[in-house]
Amino acid sequence: MHDSLMLQLVGEFIGTAVLIILGDGVVAAVTLNKSKAKGAGWVAIALGWGLAITIAVYCAAFLSPAHLNPAVSLGMAIAGKFSWAYVIPYSIAQILGGVLGGIIVWAFYYDQFKETDDSDAILTIFATAPAIRRYGMNFLSEFIGTCVLMFALLAFTRGNFTEGLNPIAVGLLITSIGFSLGGTTGYAINPARDLGPRIAHAIMPVPNKGTSDWAYSWVPILGPMLGGALGAALFVLIP
Amino acid sequence: MHDSLMLQLVGEFIGTAVLIILGDGVVAAVTLNKSKAKGAGWVAIALGWGLAITIAVYCAAFLSPAHLNPAVSLGMAIAGKFSWAYVIPYSIAQILGGVLGGIIVWAFYYDQFKETDDSDAILTIFATAPAIRRYGMNFLSEFIGTCVLMFALLAFTRGNFTEGLNPIAVGLLITSIGFSLGGTTGYAINPARDLGPRIAHAIMPVPNKGTSDWAYSWVPILGPMLGGALGAALFVLIP
Amino acid sequence: MHDSLMLQLVGEFIGTAVLIILGDGVVAAVTLNKSKAKGAGWVAIALGWGLAITIAVYCAAFLSPAHLNPAVSLGMAIAGKFSWAYVIPYSIAQILGGVLGGIIVWAFYYDQFKETDDSDAILTIFATAPAIRRYGMNFLSEFIGTCVLMFALLAFTRGNFTEGLNPIAVGLLITSIGFSLGGTTGYAINPARDLGPRIAHAIMPVPNKGTSDWAYSWVPILGPMLGGALGAALFVLIP
Amino acid sequence: MHDSLMLQLVGEFIGTAVLIILGDGVVAAVTLNKSKAKGAGWVAIALGWGLAITIAVYCAAFLSPAHLNPAVSLGMAIAGKFSWAYVIPYSIAQILGGVLGGIIVWAFYYDQFKETDDSDAILTIFATAPAIRRYGMNFLSEFIGTCVLMFALLAFTRGNFTEGLNPIAVGLLITSIGFSLGGTTGYAINPARDLGPRIAHAIMPVPNKGTSDWAYSWVPILGPMLGGALGAALFVLIP
Repeated sequence: MHDSLMLQLVGEFIGTAVLIILGDGVVAAVTLNKSKAKGAGWVAIALGWGLAITIAVYCAAFLSPAHLNPAVSLGMAIAGKFSWAYVIPYSIAQILGGVLGGIIVWAFYYDQFKETDDSDAILTIFATAPAIRRYGMNFLSEFIGTCVLMFALLAFTRGNFTEGLNPIAVGLLITSIGFSLGGTTGYAINPARDLGPRIAHAIMPVPNKGTSDWAYSWVPILGPMLGGALGAALFVLIP
Repeated sequence: MHDSLMLQLVGEFIGTAVLIILGDGVVAAVTLNKSKAKGAGWVAIALGWGLAITIAVYCAAFLSPAHLNPAVSLGMAIAGKFSWAYVIPYSIAQILGGVLGGIIVWAFYYDQFKETDDSDAILTIFATAPAIRRYGMNFLSEFIGTCVLMFALLAFTRGNFTEGLNPIAVGLLITSIGFSLGGTTGYAINPARDLGPRIAHAIMPVPNKGTSDWAYSWVPILGPMLGGALGAALFVLIP
Repeated sequence: MHDSLMLQLVGEFIGTAVLIILGDGVVAAVTLNKSKAKGAGWVAIALGWGLAITIAVYCAAFLSPAHLNPAVSLGMAIAGKFSWAYVIPYSIAQILGGVLGGIIVWAFYYDQFKETDDSDAILTIFATAPAIRRYGMNFLSEFIGTCVLMFALLAFTRGNFTEGLNPIAVGLLITSIGFSLGGTTGYAINPARDLGPRIAHAIMPVPNKGTSDWAYSWVPILGPMLGGALGAALFVLIP
Repeated sequence: MHDSLMLQLVGEFIGTAVLIILGDGVVAAVTLNKSKAKGAGWVAIALGWGLAITIAVYCAAFLSPAHLNPAVSLGMAIAGKFSWAYVIPYSIAQILGGVLGGIIVWAFYYDQFKETDDSDAILTIFATAPAIRRYGMNFLSEFIGTCVLMFALLAFTRGNFTEGLNPIAVGLLITSIGFSLGGTTGYAINPARDLGPRIAHAIMPVPNKGTSDWAYSWVPILGPMLGGALGAALFVLIP
């Protein structure tokens, strides 16, 4: 990890961009018409997002702590493992990385977007949407999911990891949450993962796109931030 | 691992709660209507339960030996690696963690339970049920599955593991048993995993629930306890 | 690993039994009627067999080198890494372990066998069968598959493995061969894996069973032995 | 790794042959009629190709740096980690290994080729083909995919890997790209992986084969070479 804040921010920016390229990429691959992976289903999505975080952590970790998630930066600050002064700059770099990642997915699958006329399906490539729209319950899903995420990430730091294994363990954690706690809202559990590419969806000329559903967008921001905060608080309560 | 029994029990309680949140969670995600993972099938269940144990072991391992299973606590005592005096308190903490985990899954998927009117399917999210109900054969399944589990866990302790890799190896073991020995009874192989959330099913107002099938509940308790005991006994017979 | 040949043979016997319990087990789970994993398909089979070897290696490795395969024992002898005098006793222990494993799968899935009346499908749980029966081409499949297996296993020994990681790498190798070279004959690549449970199929009262197809049984013996020998010979040719 | 260039070339040749045997093998297994893995789909393909690279790296790594990809050799030279003088000889060895791998897949699945009369499907076993044929967009896909590949491979070198874990991390990277960036062109991301077996397809008497589609063949050569170059250049720009 670098001493320079600027290089740390570059790491968070690059890492989150890679996370969204590979993460939103797998949803596009599985969802869009004329994609070779069309119909590969939830197993592909859960494995693909987990691998996306593993690779993204590797791509960021020589520069930054590879949070790639404002809720994780906040939780690490609550746990006393990260400077409070860096939470806002890190979050901005992560969200900007998410925007860039969303734009690259747009370019990569441009021809496939043209072949797909389901605008709801197209939105779910960029941003999460609930299976049953009830904001209170949707918030609860994101809250619990990110609470588990943050508690487990902090538990990792108290084991004896080699630096090389940690990105794989984090990927397994995301795959696990995807399989188990992804059914209700599609497990944003990361404000940058949702807001960044939602902005890309809004500003780019995505073929066949509909609304960017800003009415829902606060759920995958506030749910993860508060859930991550609780996960960190629970962890520090333990002697 | 902590010296304090109380903190060890906290570790077993938290770890088993996480195990059930992620383990019962994947069954809910794959089974319930209006879940995004609906229909992902047995590959998702076997991978999801294996990852659940990996993450749960990480979440417990800085406090306790992360048995998360009364049959494992008993087997470790038989193998001389765990104090007999702790078997009962550990088991109680594990079962209570299972109850909490079941309650969180109930809250998390509450809206999805409302959309699902198959009460048998709902029960299998919380507790195991046999594919063909014959108590003797069902007992044999749980007995053999847990015997393999316990023997393998003890074999792990005689290799040269890094502490960081062990939770992953245990997760692979559970995934393997799920793929191979899960077809008959749904592989409880753990009394706390079955009894804890079965209690949650019984006491919580789960929408569309039916009976908690207490007539079967002794099978996934006695089968694992005796199977784990045999696995440990076989292991200690080897010089 | 133990110095005593007898304990090494116990290790090979136990390890091959576990291999068949978990390996034949996943085929039973995916194939038999009234199994919860019915229809999970080739992904489950390839992952399940790979995990079976990982767990089996762990279960044997504190006693023996965990070949669990006469073709591997032969190849290791050719490569100068194993005593020629032990090849026959090891092979016998491995085949006997395979018989025991097959018997345990028979008992475990007994009720499911009764619900399944396709005797060809039942045989494939115990022994391999070709997708297209042409002995020359079937031999070639087993020959090439085991050649790749043996060369890769020897290549593993020249990397810097930790003892803890090696069983996982071997499992990945078997999963890879299953995905890629399993389509033609079902990848026995191991005489004990095929002959052992084929004997169990022949001698046990398996419900709804048909012939044990002894006419084919030489292919998954001779193909792996010669393929493994070639893989080892190619490896030792490299300086 | 060996000092001798000749042995390094042998390593690249063997490794790329193994990569194609296992990689093209999984496409054959999933695609061809009368294959036991027929219909296992994109999850099998993405996992199978990732495992293929893991095993291939193990098979090469005791002799060479296991690039197995001209785009990686070029990128490593750009990053100052590999001699420019070796890029061409390495590339030739890799392509020749790809030809041999394609020939072995031809022999292995010969009977299954005879049962399959879809010549387009047969070509995709040997070489990549776009889901939507637009050379500019197809080039972009290969360019972006290989840029991510090269950047991540270089990021791996700045972490603290054990030599034993690195092949697994590289396999996870390829699986991730397969899940996420494989939907458009089938992720060649490697000129030797595409050109080598395309030559095998052209020169061997593959039953039911059609054209080798040479009109497209420049895309999976130029896209990866330039994308890999950009990935390496971006990496070296970071202090």
